[in-house]
Amino acid sequence: MKIALDAMGGDYAPQNIVHGAVLALRAYPHISRLFLTGDTPRVEAELKKHACNDSRIEIVHTTQIVDMADSGLDAVRKKKDSSISRAVDLVKEGKAQAIVSAGHTGAAVTASLIKLRTLPGVERPAIAAIMPSLGKHWILIDAGANPDAQAQHLVQNAIMGAAYARHVLGRQNPEVGLMSNGTEEEKGNAMCKETHRLIRAAGTQINFRGNVEGHDIWHNPPDVVVTDGFTGNIILKSAEALSHAIFDMVKSEIMASFRTKIGGMLAKPAFKRVHKKTNADEYGGMPLLGLNGITIISHGGASALAIQNALRMACESIRHEAGPHIIEAIKTHHDSAAPHANPTA
Amino acid sequence: MKIALDAMGGDYAPQNIVHGAVLALRAYPHISRLFLTGDTPRVEAELKKHACNDSRIEIVHTTQIVDMADSGLDAVRKKKDSSISRAVDLVKEGKAQAIVSAGHTGAAVTASLIKLRTLPGVERPAIAAIMPSLGKHWILIDAGANPDAQAQHLVQNAIMGAAYARHVLGRQNPEVGLMSNGTEEEKGNAMCKETHRLIRAAGTQINFRGNVEGHDIWHNPPDVVVTDGFTGNIILKSAEALSHAIFDMVKSEIMASFRTKIGGMLAKPAFKRVHKKTNADEYGGMPLLGLNGITIISHGGASALAIQNALRMACESIRHEAGPHIIEAIKTHHDSAAPHANPTA
Repeated sequence: MKIALDAMGGDYAPQNIVHGAVLALRAYPHISRLFLTGDTPRVEAELKKHACNDSRIEIVHTTQIVDMADSGLDAVRKKKDSSISRAVDLVKEGKAQAIVSAGHTGAAVTASLIKLRTLPGVERPAIAAIMPSLGKHWILIDAGANPDAQAQHLVQNAIMGAAYARHVLGRQNPEVGLMSNGTEEEKGNAMCKETHRLIRAAGTQINFRGNVEGHDIWHNPPDVVVTDGFTGNIILKSAEALSHAIFDMVKSEIMASFRTKIGGMLAKPAFKRVHKKTNADEYGGMPLLGLNGITIISHGGASALAIQNALRMACESIRHEAGPHIIEAIKTHHDSAAPHANPTA
Repeated sequence: MKIALDAMGGDYAPQNIVHGAVLALRAYPHISRLFLTGDTPRVEAELKKHACNDSRIEIVHTTQIVDMADSGLDAVRKKKDSSISRAVDLVKEGKAQAIVSAGHTGAAVTASLIKLRTLPGVERPAIAAIMPSLGKHWILIDAGANPDAQAQHLVQNAIMGAAYARHVLGRQNPEVGLMSNGTEEEKGNAMCKETHRLIRAAGTQINFRGNVEGHDIWHNPPDVVVTDGFTGNIILKSAEALSHAIFDMVKSEIMASFRTKIGGMLAKPAFKRVHKKTNADEYGGMPLLGLNGITIISHGGASALAIQNALRMACESIRHEAGPHIIEAIKTHHDSAAPHANPTA
């Protein structure tokens, strides 16, 4: 498997990115080629730190840096020689099969969208985040690709998320919920209500639970939770931050007395297991669905572990390619919706 | 202080509501009159369970029940003799100074809006939720009153939230952040970007930090976080549910071995302190700002403790009346914005 890794994207790039690459090369022998796009001297210096001279690595030198204040479109149009642009080019040229980036999400989404194009019938790509809960994992879609979504985009998110849950996560007849401010059908903002109506109209193609609210997603989530990229990104980031904050609060309260300190030491293995379950770095990457190619988005603060896991997810996405299933599901939806949309045809 | 409590509103009404009323009457001698609106025999039966015959209680019999599937407007128009409608009537008639309800939020907001009207200059009321963090508390506004908000409503949320933070929570020059999917100015959906522009244009009246994202609200929140009622409600409910889910995960992992069980027992006081800090019932109620009267919204699953605390918040809201400060702040904003809005005037 051949992967292009954006070595300069992320708050701790290139150090964490290159470190993650080294860990992944050791762990995953099925990576046959790993392109590192970025500033050659800096990338080489990081590789040297880890005494890594793996022959599967190929550095692709780039000269431009995407700034967090650039718009996604500007980053792609004006910085053709950035590490993210070059990583996407490698997939476009057929040299690599997947891109991994922890950099500017808008730039990664826009570069992938412009260079790889959407799958037939797909209007907008969406980020699918794999989220933990007390029981099974669930998919949050869209976690940030399309903040100005319309109802028909959310219906496509439902279809793409369900196709991914079925064919990649192996869920039978995956259940879909629509994120809202209440479970009742009449709850929601205007876009949410319109989406609810359109998903209901899709009939049996979508196994629709109806609206879900904040409580449901952490206690009894469906397989797929559909929302727009603005709301989804806020849910994703605030959940990550809140779980860190709770662990920090517990740690600080445990340190407050001798008794609780001893208790904390004894209970440590339990904390570690919960931390592992809820730590975003254990998932590492989120696939960008709906494109003619595989892009895995990692978060800006990605650790080496997060990058290693994002590279693992890239391998899994190459193996269980979701694209053809998404094309088919979108086509089925269009075919069944067409007579209603155009009754005189 | 005279308060009207919706005794039939909430998932565990009337039992938790009446129990909370009994606790509040014991704890707060400054409550001089507590109206309980609801079905008299059921309310009396609950009072009897707690052997409560406090002379400050006055039951106001109501015959209609708001269903969670009713729209807020239908609930108010078609069910004039519901417990929430009657509670608002008591304030309108001057018999009570504040309403507390854990029932249908839309019905409580709509009844308050129609019967009490907005303060001069205020376009829409907004729910201000007091949220915990590692450090100081912060205000999330709007936590669910107005899911289809427009940018100018969000600017008013900023002004109302800051007035509340200053005059009720005692914050000096409260800092305001705008909820978005990234801290950079160009991040956000269209409404968020327009709100950003309008808040910047308000100049020094709003101490504006700029956009805040999911990480900021749990690690370094401003005093006030502004958003629409759809997003705000999702943030509020998912934070409550996620903190419960994390405690459940920790508990289940602690029970997995003898060593961690002993550790958990010793560390229990630390957990209790964190639980108390993060438990929504400790806050109990959220003021609905921007109305000509005081309405405190409690959550549907409110416990007796939550109702007791919502009644405490009603007392505090009567004491530190935010209304006049909100009127003044909205007026200052209108006066300073007017020359720009109407340059030929």
